[in-house]
Amino acid sequence: MQTIFTDERLLEGVNQCAEYPHIDPATLANRILELAAFGKTADGGVTRFVYTEEEKQAKNLFVSWIKEAGLEVREDGFGNLFAKYTGEDPDLPAVMTGSHLDSVPNGGYFDGPLGCVSSFMAIEALMKEGKRPKRSIEFVIFVNEEGSRFNNGIFGSQALMGEITKKELNTYRDKEGVSIAEAMKEQGYDPEIALAGKCEKSDIHAFLELHIEQGKQLELNNEKIGIVSGIAGPTWQSFTFLGETDHAGNTPMHLRKDTLCAAAEFMLEVEKLPRQINETAVATVGKIDVSPNGANVISGKTNIIVDVRDIDKESLVELNKRIVSRASEIAERRGIQVEHEELTKIDPVVVPESIQESIKASCERHQLAYRSLVSGAGHDAMIMGKYVPSAMVFVPSVNGKSHSPEEFTHLADCVDGVAVMKDVLWDLANE
Amino acid sequence: MQTIFTDERLLEGVNQCAEYPHIDPATLANRILELAAFGKTADGGVTRFVYTEEEKQAKNLFVSWIKEAGLEVREDGFGNLFAKYTGEDPDLPAVMTGSHLDSVPNGGYFDGPLGCVSSFMAIEALMKEGKRPKRSIEFVIFVNEEGSRFNNGIFGSQALMGEITKKELNTYRDKEGVSIAEAMKEQGYDPEIALAGKCEKSDIHAFLELHIEQGKQLELNNEKIGIVSGIAGPTWQSFTFLGETDHAGNTPMHLRKDTLCAAAEFMLEVEKLPRQINETAVATVGKIDVSPNGANVISGKTNIIVDVRDIDKESLVELNKRIVSRASEIAERRGIQVEHEELTKIDPVVVPESIQESIKASCERHQLAYRSLVSGAGHDAMIMGKYVPSAMVFVPSVNGKSHSPEEFTHLADCVDGVAVMKDVLWDLANE
Repeated sequence: MQTIFTDERLLEGVNQCAEYPHIDPATLANRILELAAFGKTADGGVTRFVYTEEEKQAKNLFVSWIKEAGLEVREDGFGNLFAKYTGEDPDLPAVMTGSHLDSVPNGGYFDGPLGCVSSFMAIEALMKEGKRPKRSIEFVIFVNEEGSRFNNGIFGSQALMGEITKKELNTYRDKEGVSIAEAMKEQGYDPEIALAGKCEKSDIHAFLELHIEQGKQLELNNEKIGIVSGIAGPTWQSFTFLGETDHAGNTPMHLRKDTLCAAAEFMLEVEKLPRQINETAVATVGKIDVSPNGANVISGKTNIIVDVRDIDKESLVELNKRIVSRASEIAERRGIQVEHEELTKIDPVVVPESIQESIKASCERHQLAYRSLVSGAGHDAMIMGKYVPSAMVFVPSVNGKSHSPEEFTHLADCVDGVAVMKDVLWDLANE
Repeated sequence: MQTIFTDERLLEGVNQCAEYPHIDPATLANRILELAAFGKTADGGVTRFVYTEEEKQAKNLFVSWIKEAGLEVREDGFGNLFAKYTGEDPDLPAVMTGSHLDSVPNGGYFDGPLGCVSSFMAIEALMKEGKRPKRSIEFVIFVNEEGSRFNNGIFGSQALMGEITKKELNTYRDKEGVSIAEAMKEQGYDPEIALAGKCEKSDIHAFLELHIEQGKQLELNNEKIGIVSGIAGPTWQSFTFLGETDHAGNTPMHLRKDTLCAAAEFMLEVEKLPRQINETAVATVGKIDVSPNGANVISGKTNIIVDVRDIDKESLVELNKRIVSRASEIAERRGIQVEHEELTKIDPVVVPESIQESIKASCERHQLAYRSLVSGAGHDAMIMGKYVPSAMVFVPSVNGKSHSPEEFTHLADCVDGVAVMKDVLWDLANE
């Protein structure tokens, strides 16, 4: 792969940013680049997994910035890192804001780190302005959002809210066979102590996260801010079509029980159905496993996974229902079998109107074109949204790319994002 | 896998066979079983590759039967084995008949060996009856029809007709890295000498091969003999759809360039087209390769191989043309790219009407229900058919199974096959 010159490209944007008080574009750019140094890959990406030396170094660097800003740092038993800007009434539930520092293998600079840097710089800007809100604002860096090391994502926020069990810490293992519990111990965390502590939802007033869009809608419409109306967690359903493995040459078309053809018919239905039900709904088949997968053999077994998402729970249920019934209809008409299994189901999170209005007001104040959109990807805000009012601000992804060295967001867009985060945190912390 | 009791099942058929002079069912059954002993697998199948000890032992056993029958054995430089029943006029071009003894990995007892045993027992029956035809009948055992060891099938017949080059002998290698030339030398064959000799097509009057159907048509229609009207060699075409790899959650349905959906639409066209063109045509997609093949990723690249076969060359060309144009239409409408490559193209072989008539006459004589059908699989007769009039007789495959330990043909059907072979060889050898 060609090396991507993200560093130079980001720094070139320093003079193209809007001016906001106490938000310095060069500082933002340099912080993104300094974080990216930990786990940088040969082709210009980043590999930084949870409970590794790279992650510890990135966190330590962040801790030095927090201390420079005059805030104290606290870490929970899992390694989630907190820093509180104390409000006028420290007893009120705080507004929490932040993201994650871990990455996928050979991922980009922005997915996670930009959220952390934005939340933190928004708080810094409020501090520098001498504006102290009613409620405290608590900055957070969640561990292990991507889940690339142990195949279990959005871990830190689940851990914070008490969703992680001892069994999970001992079951999930990395490719070297190290369990989460063992990896924690290696980094000086005691799993027993970690499991004993959790956050009460009554201590949190709201949660706010900035993230790159990981899609193209903002860019295609030349808009700067995405106001997330809801976070659609995936439901994953597995469908296995069972027919007959036969010789491609010696089996006439009308005697076949071809499971790949059945799956093809089904995939086209999966592609059509979301639009018939809800404009925010999406359904995808990205994974297929055909057996025996030989050019001259009619496939006797085909498994596919259908990923369905929507922010509206009713339409999500209806969409999944129709998908399951289409699979049965197609199998029955073709005289083959189909087996169906639900693998994953995460309820959608609806973002409160009031926070969406606050984001909108900020965009209008700064004359930033915005769009209401759905987050189809899971984020820590999806977990937090189960317990407390949660919202997300999206900034544009160049060409929609993410989870690759090509991931990029122009510095001007990052800076606009910080300005919006600052306004919305102020609003939330004064509620 | 469960052990298949093919031995007992075959022997049970001894008393259910029709009576034909000088065709002994028990001998036929025992010969199939004795050959299967060389390379027998734990789950009741056979693995017998070219230029191995198992193959040599099977050939040596066959040589002992040939010698018992009073015929002389000759081997060419590649290991193809011949035995001539000399006709009244030895100078006339001979009728050649036979099949192969090699197998796929964990294949069955019948694919190949039954053809060899049937041809040989038909000749034996003629000899025992004291019937000497005008032309000689030359029995042949081809080497390496399946091609499982070196990934190059229908080798022996190609070698006989001078199609094999020195380069092929040095290029194709087995999984231990041994080239065909090296394997030949290990078995005492000199590749240089082998390449220097070939058969002149003017020495062969016709070629006749019996084979199991490897399909279900005879069984489903309760018919005993398949009269092959043509042998449809495969054409393999590779289609690679190139779109955009995007996040399944964050990409609305209308912004996708999903190559798996494009391939699905194309596969359904491939399934529909053959019936629109010719009833003997078949088209199959059995092999698909999706990238990145993740449940939550829209596939940016999908490759499929389309296997197309027909015995009518014109309709084969037309079918392939329409398939290629459908791929382009679908890609264009979806705003993605498609790359197309022809991997394999083997012209169909048409079986002369006169030989089909001879087979039909034999079936009627013995009151055997028959059906005209196409061989969609490649056989040595497909190569021979390029040079000399060639024909095939099919016998029923139980449940259409082949290339597995489940491969089975009832003994009565095998015996009927020998009777038909005997009649047709007699007809051909007296032309």
